[in-house]
Amino acid sequence: MQFDEVVQTRRSVHEYNDDPIDRETLDDVFETATLSPSGYNLQPWEFLALRDDDRKETLRELAYDQAHVTEADTTVVVLGNTDPTAHADPVFDDWLAKGYLPNEEARDGLVENVEGMGELPVDERRIWTTRSTSLAAMTLMYAAWDHGIATCPMEGFDAEGVAEAFDIPDSYEPVMLVTLGYPAEGTADIENERKTRRPVDEVVHYGEFDPVEETSLGEVSGE
Amino acid sequence: MQFDEVVQTRRSVHEYNDDPIDRETLDDVFETATLSPSGYNLQPWEFLALRDDDRKETLRELAYDQAHVTEADTTVVVLGNTDPTAHADPVFDDWLAKGYLPNEEARDGLVENVEGMGELPVDERRIWTTRSTSLAAMTLMYAAWDHGIATCPMEGFDAEGVAEAFDIPDSYEPVMLVTLGYPAEGTADIENERKTRRPVDEVVHYGEFDPVEETSLGEVSGE
Repeated sequence: MQFDEVVQTRRSVHEYNDDPIDRETLDDVFETATLSPSGYNLQPWEFLALRDDDRKETLRELAYDQAHVTEADTTVVVLGNTDPTAHADPVFDDWLAKGYLPNEEARDGLVENVEGMGELPVDERRIWTTRSTSLAAMTLMYAAWDHGIATCPMEGFDAEGVAEAFDIPDSYEPVMLVTLGYPAEGTADIENERKTRRPVDEVVHYGEFDPVEETSLGEVSGE
Repeated sequence: MQFDEVVQTRRSVHEYNDDPIDRETLDDVFETATLSPSGYNLQPWEFLALRDDDRKETLRELAYDQAHVTEADTTVVVLGNTDPTAHADPVFDDWLAKGYLPNEEARDGLVENVEGMGELPVDERRIWTTRSTSLAAMTLMYAAWDHGIATCPMEGFDAEGVAEAFDIPDSYEPVMLVTLGYPAEGTADIENERKTRRPVDEVVHYGEFDPVEETSLGEVSGE
């Protein structure tokens, strides 16, 4: 699909049909997601992909009984490692090997920077991992739709409960859930008019930050 | 460009040529970014786009003197509104008008949910806004590259200093910077071999979360 078409036609879909996603396609979607950028290329993202009924049922209970968690072929818990140092050594070895760094000293300097980040308060490291991990989640959703697989990102779930139910260590942040499946025919999420976006001249500030007092979103949706 | 090509060829580029980005193209890139999903479609993202030399110089000083901040045609401060309630009313009016909600009562219920989110501690609201705003930032970077405009996301900057220098209220989180410009010929960021990504079988866990003890990234980069 053309890039523009992927972005313009992607919608958050809550209703799926029963067509299974084949594992090769799913792997391909995840692999595309890993091409996302991240600070220092540290790639803190990991994905817990739930496909069997029991596990999806457990997750659905922890996601306030939202039905699409079990109706989707696959529901993914998008996780962020909150430890910036987890992969720093091999990442910077790679930079050195490929000529992005002039020498071992530069490499060691970067490792030190990242070690400093590793000492930040946990809330700052949660924000750090949410940032990069969300970039990968966005790519995941577009990559899925490029294969005709609809998605829905979800932030309404009991993160602590999810961590406990699926043995996720405290050092990971459950960033969001993403459901994946082929869309049900005639689902409102695709058939209904697209939900309005705030207009570009409201969200983009050239040169000076001049927040609007009142969104013009209401007017636009009436057009 | 085909979607796959956009994702496969996008690189974080630090060196730009002097070709200006025309304003219409830039607006189009931002408009595409706004098509990203967000929790409840609340769209907390705003973008401060700096294009003149003085403002970019100020920002560069606050970004540890990283040269591409001034060399890029445009450097964007990606901001997240930390108040989930900021646009809730018109967003849910839009849902009601388009048939996503059955009645006013359902609409008011959603407004109440979001008001509850608005009472969360500030750190949780920072994470909330970082999540949605990063989704839009990812779309922004792909949309730019679809026009041949290279980008580089940056998280290394003095966020408080940036807020102060550009009169950004406390209620906004400076989530990241993104430089935008046409890539300089022969830049290492494009000419050098791509930085390695962690392999898909390491970052995706099917059914059970089984973190690897040691990344295999080093081996892969040697291939």
